[in-house]
Amino acid sequence: MQLKDIGEFGFIQRFATKYDSLIKQGDMGIGDDCAVLSISDTENHVITTDLLVEDVHFLKSEISAFELGHKSLAVNLSDIAAMGAQPLYSFLSVGIPKNTPVEFLDSFMEGYHHLSEKYSVPLMGGDTTKSPDKLVINVAVVGRCKKDETHLRSMAEANDIICVTGPLGDSGAGLKVMLEQLERNDINNQLVKRHHWPEPRIDEGRWLAQQKGVHAMMDISDGISSDLKHILKASGKAAAIQTDILPISLEMNKQASVYNWNRIELAAAGGEDYELLVTIQGDKYDAISQQFLKAFNKPLHPIGRITEGESSIRWFNESEEIHPDKIGFEHFK
Amino acid sequence: MQLKDIGEFGFIQRFATKYDSLIKQGDMGIGDDCAVLSISDTENHVITTDLLVEDVHFLKSEISAFELGHKSLAVNLSDIAAMGAQPLYSFLSVGIPKNTPVEFLDSFMEGYHHLSEKYSVPLMGGDTTKSPDKLVINVAVVGRCKKDETHLRSMAEANDIICVTGPLGDSGAGLKVMLEQLERNDINNQLVKRHHWPEPRIDEGRWLAQQKGVHAMMDISDGISSDLKHILKASGKAAAIQTDILPISLEMNKQASVYNWNRIELAAAGGEDYELLVTIQGDKYDAISQQFLKAFNKPLHPIGRITEGESSIRWFNESEEIHPDKIGFEHFK
Repeated sequence: MQLKDIGEFGFIQRFATKYDSLIKQGDMGIGDDCAVLSISDTENHVITTDLLVEDVHFLKSEISAFELGHKSLAVNLSDIAAMGAQPLYSFLSVGIPKNTPVEFLDSFMEGYHHLSEKYSVPLMGGDTTKSPDKLVINVAVVGRCKKDETHLRSMAEANDIICVTGPLGDSGAGLKVMLEQLERNDINNQLVKRHHWPEPRIDEGRWLAQQKGVHAMMDISDGISSDLKHILKASGKAAAIQTDILPISLEMNKQASVYNWNRIELAAAGGEDYELLVTIQGDKYDAISQQFLKAFNKPLHPIGRITEGESSIRWFNESEEIHPDKIGFEHFK
Repeated sequence: MQLKDIGEFGFIQRFATKYDSLIKQGDMGIGDDCAVLSISDTENHVITTDLLVEDVHFLKSEISAFELGHKSLAVNLSDIAAMGAQPLYSFLSVGIPKNTPVEFLDSFMEGYHHLSEKYSVPLMGGDTTKSPDKLVINVAVVGRCKKDETHLRSMAEANDIICVTGPLGDSGAGLKVMLEQLERNDINNQLVKRHHWPEPRIDEGRWLAQQKGVHAMMDISDGISSDLKHILKASGKAAAIQTDILPISLEMNKQASVYNWNRIELAAAGGEDYELLVTIQGDKYDAISQQFLKAFNKPLHPIGRITEGESSIRWFNESEEIHPDKIGFEHFK
């Protein structure tokens, strides 16, 4: 039996529960965007880590070193945002092929520093070593939040409105442009840019975490069709998604017509959107949504509703139920 | 210019100082075994991370999966020990070639769990992804210690006695046995085992950290000829090392005669000993050394003395000064 037969989550399930007895009261381990470590009666540290490997997560021929440095930190800050936390510190390990030009590394570190500075997150340590052929990058980030503002995947409740903080599918469309070697016109370049330059929703995450009525939060890395299931499983709930109101950018909409892309599939399962996926108590939704618009000058997009049931998503086009074939992916499948 | 031209430390120096202005008062970033993060008026978190790449740090044909899992955590716990801290949490990222047998991964995770349990350090999170061809492992560990028991490389003072917590060079000798494909008799196997199964000196580190008179501490990963220089640079001091009293195991001593190895070179620059390197105030040394022997049933080995001067080591054989050629290595040279 090989890893590809059991998948990433199957592998994690083989050992995760062995640590339950070692985990201290008030702490939380594997299973959310970040681990939760109690540091006082009122505050938590939250920690996340992400590994990026050349030719699996990025192609050096496509992404610039500056963008790669930015993205390596951004995908971790996105996990911190998903807890409602403030990022505090980062740690960077790099495995570097011997013939890597110093200019590439300098530019990578400049992209990393650019985002570090934006959110005042100092790089506090790490490891630098050689790698036989592929560039390897591991980032870990520590954040901090009040205990009563720490938002978990398990907090969704029936009748919550499910929302996202921005359009879905641009990043997946950008990946398509690269993989299918489509013409690099302005619009396609913008989609590729959305894939290479995710903006972590730190400010939105902090703001949402402080609103009474905001329940579960997570970030969208694999696509809502896959990510929402984690919320449903952790909360013991089901969901109904309205595909007709999934937020889609003008750019993606236009290119979907040109190339005959399936908009719903890209929006639901394209992956790497790094927007926040949030569930909000039904009777608080209108007020929070209006205040969000004022605070950020952009809308919070409702996409469906949490229901009673067992971890499954039902998909609707207006009132008609549909059965999409593609429902996200795991890294090993 | 390529990375091999400037080396690992040269690369780190190009960006490390850019973060100085972002680092909060009381915290400490790049430059010690761990970063130091203040979590209250009296306590610090300390964090370390290490990246291990197949064919750079280990050969799958030589180390068992169980040993590799143990070692991946052990080298990080050793950094925690070097600060005088108690390890609290670990995080594990693995990049896995697609055809890796699940049995290998299970055994790897068992070795990791074995050491986690020994020191009650739960695995709290991480990342699992595929890798094109090499197994990639990144571990991060969080520890905790009182502020007045946090030991830095910068704390060495003139006339401190320099000590180590165990014999030096066994691990380097074990590596030699593998690389030179020497006969696998009992003694050589023991040396190889010392390379594959480092024991982090957590208990020794905690104990030493609590003794008044213990100053600088770090762990020995590259060999004292290289590691001691970090203490000297951070403390603005020099050192005199007595090569005639470097602690050498019976096994290494015996095989050095058989294979005509240079004992001093192996002990000073073999690397991966993962013993602690400690400097102790001269007038407190005798008492601490005697109490250490009682507490751990093994001696603390004195190897030299801190002196005034500029970051350099002078080497002596009894009263005669010597000039060893080999003085450690950096990963890129």
